[in-house]
Amino acid sequence: MYDVHSVREDFPVLKNVIYLDNAATTQTPVPAVRAMEEYFFRYAGNHGRGAHRLARETTDHYEDARESVAHFLKTDAKRTVFTGNATESINIVSRGFPWEDGDHVVVTLVEHHSNLLPWMRLKDEGVNITIVRPDITGVVDPEDVRSAINDRTRLIAVNHISNVFGSRQDITKIIRSAHREDVRVLVDGSQSAGHVPLDINSMDPDFFATPGHKGLLGPQGTGILYIKEPDMIEPMFVGGGMVRSVTDSCYEAEPCPAKFEAGTPNMPGVIGLGRAVEYVRNIGVDMIEKHELSLARDAASRLAGIDGVEVYGPRDRASVVSFNVKGMNAHDVAMILDQTKKICVRSGYHCAIPGIDLLGVDGTVRASFALYNTQEEVDILVETVSNIASLVA
Amino acid sequence: MYDVHSVREDFPVLKNVIYLDNAATTQTPVPAVRAMEEYFFRYAGNHGRGAHRLARETTDHYEDARESVAHFLKTDAKRTVFTGNATESINIVSRGFPWEDGDHVVVTLVEHHSNLLPWMRLKDEGVNITIVRPDITGVVDPEDVRSAINDRTRLIAVNHISNVFGSRQDITKIIRSAHREDVRVLVDGSQSAGHVPLDINSMDPDFFATPGHKGLLGPQGTGILYIKEPDMIEPMFVGGGMVRSVTDSCYEAEPCPAKFEAGTPNMPGVIGLGRAVEYVRNIGVDMIEKHELSLARDAASRLAGIDGVEVYGPRDRASVVSFNVKGMNAHDVAMILDQTKKICVRSGYHCAIPGIDLLGVDGTVRASFALYNTQEEVDILVETVSNIASLVA
Repeated sequence: MYDVHSVREDFPVLKNVIYLDNAATTQTPVPAVRAMEEYFFRYAGNHGRGAHRLARETTDHYEDARESVAHFLKTDAKRTVFTGNATESINIVSRGFPWEDGDHVVVTLVEHHSNLLPWMRLKDEGVNITIVRPDITGVVDPEDVRSAINDRTRLIAVNHISNVFGSRQDITKIIRSAHREDVRVLVDGSQSAGHVPLDINSMDPDFFATPGHKGLLGPQGTGILYIKEPDMIEPMFVGGGMVRSVTDSCYEAEPCPAKFEAGTPNMPGVIGLGRAVEYVRNIGVDMIEKHELSLARDAASRLAGIDGVEVYGPRDRASVVSFNVKGMNAHDVAMILDQTKKICVRSGYHCAIPGIDLLGVDGTVRASFALYNTQEEVDILVETVSNIASLVA
Repeated sequence: MYDVHSVREDFPVLKNVIYLDNAATTQTPVPAVRAMEEYFFRYAGNHGRGAHRLARETTDHYEDARESVAHFLKTDAKRTVFTGNATESINIVSRGFPWEDGDHVVVTLVEHHSNLLPWMRLKDEGVNITIVRPDITGVVDPEDVRSAINDRTRLIAVNHISNVFGSRQDITKIIRSAHREDVRVLVDGSQSAGHVPLDINSMDPDFFATPGHKGLLGPQGTGILYIKEPDMIEPMFVGGGMVRSVTDSCYEAEPCPAKFEAGTPNMPGVIGLGRAVEYVRNIGVDMIEKHELSLARDAASRLAGIDGVEVYGPRDRASVVSFNVKGMNAHDVAMILDQTKKICVRSGYHCAIPGIDLLGVDGTVRASFALYNTQEEVDILVETVSNIASLVA
């Protein structure tokens, strides 16, 4: 039996608010913060094997975190790169991929800006883009993606779970048909890692990007990029820590992951992330998914039952619930939720304007759930939204 | 009177080691770590004004940190961008500058790889590079830089203080003569910010890059980039948080600094950095510089007096002391210092191979000082090096 109340003890801020903005960022558990504190107070040094004792201990903890994350995502530490956030992870691929003039990329209309703009920008390099439309619940038909492939298509970039609709894409099917045509696939797992069971080895994407600070519960300032064929990608940053040799005219890069981690890494952040991932693993993602889906689907169906409330996304949603109160601006609804009941939700376009445009609205209110949310919190949300809706009825 | 022993109370790790690797990274004071802890436990949310109370409080603290840093560096918060480290700061400029085929860049041979490789890589874009040689103590003659300028020169990239030699460049003279020829200047302030008084407004560089985790005492994973003319530079990352509008074919970026900070920022890191900078400001950089120079120059002159020890760099050095024990590998010297007296120094090429090559050695041992080091620590260093040197005499 999952004991949510004991889990909540590890997230002190939850004593003060009803936190339903987990799709933007989750809270970080006490043990992860303590791991960072231990780093600062006991052994902080710069990354680099073979130097003095502090540098060695820091390096060991940093690389242990890489092992933890890779093990959790069921992949190889040598292909697991730490970045600052998922946006950086995706930009590394979009700028480092060996594009040729006339190449083609397929994306969807329900991407976060961070998985849309990096591809749109490629038109400056002569790369064309096709944007596949989902259905009105934010679900992309894998067949539509497949038929967007042409003989110049090099890459498909697609979300695993939409941050607006909570819709889940059939990634396995998309990857399988792409690989049949020798097309690479980047999966934006920002809303899936830590929320639903993941096995990168069997999913077999070419690139997988995720922040450390959402379902993985790590601190902000951390991100992950899995790269199946690291030699294919040029690094975004060059500088200290990523080269083997330098003359006054050329340099030779280290192999992955060092190649992609120039400069002093975010050691405290990554060490905190490593501990956070252990925390998630100890609870179990199966358990977390079951808990979150139960809350999100209950919230969605009860909100949809309120007169004047419209809920978006599919019935078999993940832990994201977007909705509107008819006749009210989403920001006003969010503000009232905050001011009256300290309910923290997002409102607006959620960094996904084209997806929001699809709904024909200016924005939505978005409640998004994590492992520490409770049924009581759902009840208060539903009751408060109901009261707000009755104001404009 | 500067009370170093009371300062040391704020850096618990110093109880265990003699930490002389401050040019790689300094330690972070307790109040900065507590500020991060407060963020995690009391108000963590994602950046974004106008959202719920946690997001607003996080945004306020994050932007307050920007004000603190800008005020400390004597510049404008609107031109102060947070990055992951100085390497990222420099790469943003090297990749975002509006290069044209045949353009020319001037750098020096005493740059850290992070201020060398980003310019070397530009040869792929048809940008030529001239590397100016310093004298044997690592000091660059501003006249040599000036005479390297030709009619295609767009930018000069130069360190303020060398991380190998501890030499200090005459930045003001270099900038003044560059601006006369309409050439921009990027200053790598990695070894100067927080160590010596800085006034960006009067120094007037076009770009100034520094990590947050060296003289500014912030956590690793933070960096700063000052950009005088932000509209001139294309952002490196595109995605969430940096756009005003997006259609399915184009997007419009926000103004600086948002334009350069796509994705979820390192809020805990930046908030910690803001507090760390306040800590430095409260002590006073004048006081810190005086303390550090006294230690470093004493160490350098006494080490140079030991038979068989060679010390590099100028007499009027900053807080970096590179040396070798003749007949011994630098790594072995560093290892003995660590194993016998828990003295943490760097050894090797310090991410600056061309500069090390200039000395005709494989590497150096580097002791680098910060505000919390003591005369007793210098005494132990000198005595231990003397004992090591006598082993091979």
